[in-house]
Amino acid sequence: MKLLEDRILSDGEVIGGKILKVSNFLNHQIDVAFLDKLAQEWAGLFAGSKITKVLTIESSGIAIGASIARVLGVPLVFAKKHQTSNVNEDVYSSKVYSFTHDQFYTVVVSKKYISAGEKILLADDFLANGNALKGLIEICKAAGAEVVGAACAIEKGFQNGGDELRKMGLKVESLAIIDKMDSNGIVFRK
Amino acid sequence: MKLLEDRILSDGEVIGGKILKVSNFLNHQIDVAFLDKLAQEWAGLFAGSKITKVLTIESSGIAIGASIARVLGVPLVFAKKHQTSNVNEDVYSSKVYSFTHDQFYTVVVSKKYISAGEKILLADDFLANGNALKGLIEICKAAGAEVVGAACAIEKGFQNGGDELRKMGLKVESLAIIDKMDSNGIVFRK
Repeated sequence: MKLLEDRILSDGEVIGGKILKVSNFLNHQIDVAFLDKLAQEWAGLFAGSKITKVLTIESSGIAIGASIARVLGVPLVFAKKHQTSNVNEDVYSSKVYSFTHDQFYTVVVSKKYISAGEKILLADDFLANGNALKGLIEICKAAGAEVVGAACAIEKGFQNGGDELRKMGLKVESLAIIDKMDSNGIVFRK
Repeated sequence: MKLLEDRILSDGEVIGGKILKVSNFLNHQIDVAFLDKLAQEWAGLFAGSKITKVLTIESSGIAIGASIARVLGVPLVFAKKHQTSNVNEDVYSSKVYSFTHDQFYTVVVSKKYISAGEKILLADDFLANGNALKGLIEICKAAGAEVVGAACAIEKGFQNGGDELRKMGLKVESLAIIDKMDSNGIVFRK
């Protein structure tokens, strides 16, 4: 999506080849009107999917998830991150490894908020190795809910998580896929 | 606000006199259309305040903050919680004690996203002892920004944080103030 690619080029900051900072519009300061435009795009890409709920992970997925849920007219659920793997029986949980923080955390969703037969759209700001999405998929499977796809703003194509999920048959719609980035600039996938 | 009080009565769950669970519409599963109605109410209550930015704290303030920012047509900034007090010079920070988790955490906002002269509206889902809001106020002061008020969904009136902030001169607009709650029910402030 040109709108997002242009915004990344104008406002993003590449640090050391692997980190892209977009904290002035996406995940620290948030341009809500801009997110609403991305949400409209995803609504088109997933039209006809009969989505019943949007599922994301705290914290930086919440604003994006809320914009999508608003357009689709469905509730948003955000999974919570726990430092420990001690969880009670009222939740679905999954262990996720974060490369960014080099640690495991446990992702948790109350059993009350995902039910068998639901059609879930996953949402997140970034897709890199795909571990966070895999954790959410595991939770949906445990609940007997169907994952209709994943809406990600920025995919780091060079980290392969997105392509791996696509090979597994998941419909992954990233609005900007970066195949290469360094001090010379950013190369988007066509 | 009757709409919120009614929703608390129908969907909220009081646990042990101090905990009110509203996770099915406010802070785990989120009814975005409902939050938008609360945001409209706050927009009216803060009309004429010339707000330039909404400031909240991750995670459960983000969806509410996004709804308010949308109505006001301004950006949202969410402060990040750090477990350690090690922060760099690029951020404003404040130490906050959480009664819920019985621990201190450091609240952090990049210096880029709050500037001198800005008019900031604080937003959060709950107001109890007011420590989180006091942390955000400290950050705004450090930035030379003016806090025009605080928009909180549910205030636990019996924990006095809201009244304390009002005595300090802050305009605190909580849409439901609970003066008492136990197994017999919930008493809202009139």
